[in-house]
Amino acid sequence: MKAMSSAPIGVFDSGLGGLTVLKELAQRLPNEHFVYLGDTARLPYGSKSINTIYKYAEQNIEFLLKHDVKAVVAACNSASSALLSFTGKDFSVPVINVIEPASQSALTTTITNNIAVLGTRATVQQNVYEQVITKNNPKVNVHSMACPLFVPFIEEGLIEDPLMNLVIHRYLSPLLATSMDTLILGCTHYPLVKKQIQKVIGSYVQVIDSAPAVADILLHKMGSGSLIANTEAEPQKIDLCITDINSRFEEVATRFLKPLSIGSLTATQL
Amino acid sequence: MKAMSSAPIGVFDSGLGGLTVLKELAQRLPNEHFVYLGDTARLPYGSKSINTIYKYAEQNIEFLLKHDVKAVVAACNSASSALLSFTGKDFSVPVINVIEPASQSALTTTITNNIAVLGTRATVQQNVYEQVITKNNPKVNVHSMACPLFVPFIEEGLIEDPLMNLVIHRYLSPLLATSMDTLILGCTHYPLVKKQIQKVIGSYVQVIDSAPAVADILLHKMGSGSLIANTEAEPQKIDLCITDINSRFEEVATRFLKPLSIGSLTATQL
Repeated sequence: MKAMSSAPIGVFDSGLGGLTVLKELAQRLPNEHFVYLGDTARLPYGSKSINTIYKYAEQNIEFLLKHDVKAVVAACNSASSALLSFTGKDFSVPVINVIEPASQSALTTTITNNIAVLGTRATVQQNVYEQVITKNNPKVNVHSMACPLFVPFIEEGLIEDPLMNLVIHRYLSPLLATSMDTLILGCTHYPLVKKQIQKVIGSYVQVIDSAPAVADILLHKMGSGSLIANTEAEPQKIDLCITDINSRFEEVATRFLKPLSIGSLTATQL
Repeated sequence: MKAMSSAPIGVFDSGLGGLTVLKELAQRLPNEHFVYLGDTARLPYGSKSINTIYKYAEQNIEFLLKHDVKAVVAACNSASSALLSFTGKDFSVPVINVIEPASQSALTTTITNNIAVLGTRATVQQNVYEQVITKNNPKVNVHSMACPLFVPFIEEGLIEDPLMNLVIHRYLSPLLATSMDTLILGCTHYPLVKKQIQKVIGSYVQVIDSAPAVADILLHKMGSGSLIANTEAEPQKIDLCITDINSRFEEVATRFLKPLSIGSLTATQL
């Protein structure tokens, strides 16, 4: 049996968005191996009901546990919302969501105590960011906005497109009337249009991407459990599993992860 | 055991789009009962691989067969493409796709022998419309265009929105340079923006919606198999089953089907 510290870290998302988190984690933790699960056969999660998303999240975690992971990162805000909303099942390894780390990061950033959150319909309806933030500091106002067209535009690669800018303007205009000084990208796809969002909201608003905060928490949790890989271990391995193989996935995943390289890409069924 | 002719007709789609077909069928066949399956837990189909779509289509048909349907309509172009591409399994009842009826209708309409097809990425990549059309008349030119943002916009209800018009212009502009006089709406969501599409392409282009053509074929197939319901049967029943219950579904389904009414709405698992 392998020592626990050399076991891989599991990361999952409904599709490609979670690769933004995986990249950050893999760069920050260069001695760790990773298994990534993209549930492309059932994406997107953000437009579905919280019950369905929870069921999918559980199945994803169980899949990763079969790969003997020592920790799991739910690199998807809709799945994280569902996991935080249902405090049912306990898993055998630490499961880290992206909502608590991003909220902490926003709380230490805001001066005006006005934080905006962009997310999918599921994440915004579930209201988990507001609950986590106000539990930590009841004086903070949280302004949430569902941006359901961002994911289809990003998946279509329409990132530098004038239509994308119109969509960003449409969703963000109501937020410009608030006193927000901090804005959370509450969906792991959104960092891909961070530059465009920053242009619309102005440079005085700090934009929070959950990935660095998730890496901090992961390192902390693993450190306290002595789960960190030995520095003399073999070279880092990043294995991707996806539930729907699609001709564009490998190309897009390679682009997302650059300069890291993909160890293996496997089609899988849940 | 019920007489076969009084059995319901099964209709399925990945989500709501197929309700445009269901409505036409139910109005044209007022003595028939219907069971509709919307696979909302896994929608959309059009961005997924043909193998995954075929698997989902098979599972949907098997679900409907358990409801003792006497015929199945695949009211989804992506699923129809998959069913036409894999000539594997034979089902115990007639399974009608939406592609052949719409193609026939377009062939009898075109004068310039230039037919345009709008569809999801899966439908356009699979090229089934072109194969069906040119098999019937090799002189016809088929101009296909994938319109992957139409479904998210329609699902968001952005139908009368200026952004929707910009997206329609974006996809349809290249088609305006062709000699098309007939345009097939190759996705059962698209009839909801038929008026907007017609405005962009001009009134001289005939827009083909598959629903009436599907009703003709269904009536014809059932007639030859003596499957038509007795005119003295009980009042028409329309039962909806969906794989992900979402707070907006009932409201949207009611709007789609009006003036018909929903008999029952059931959450189901496949």
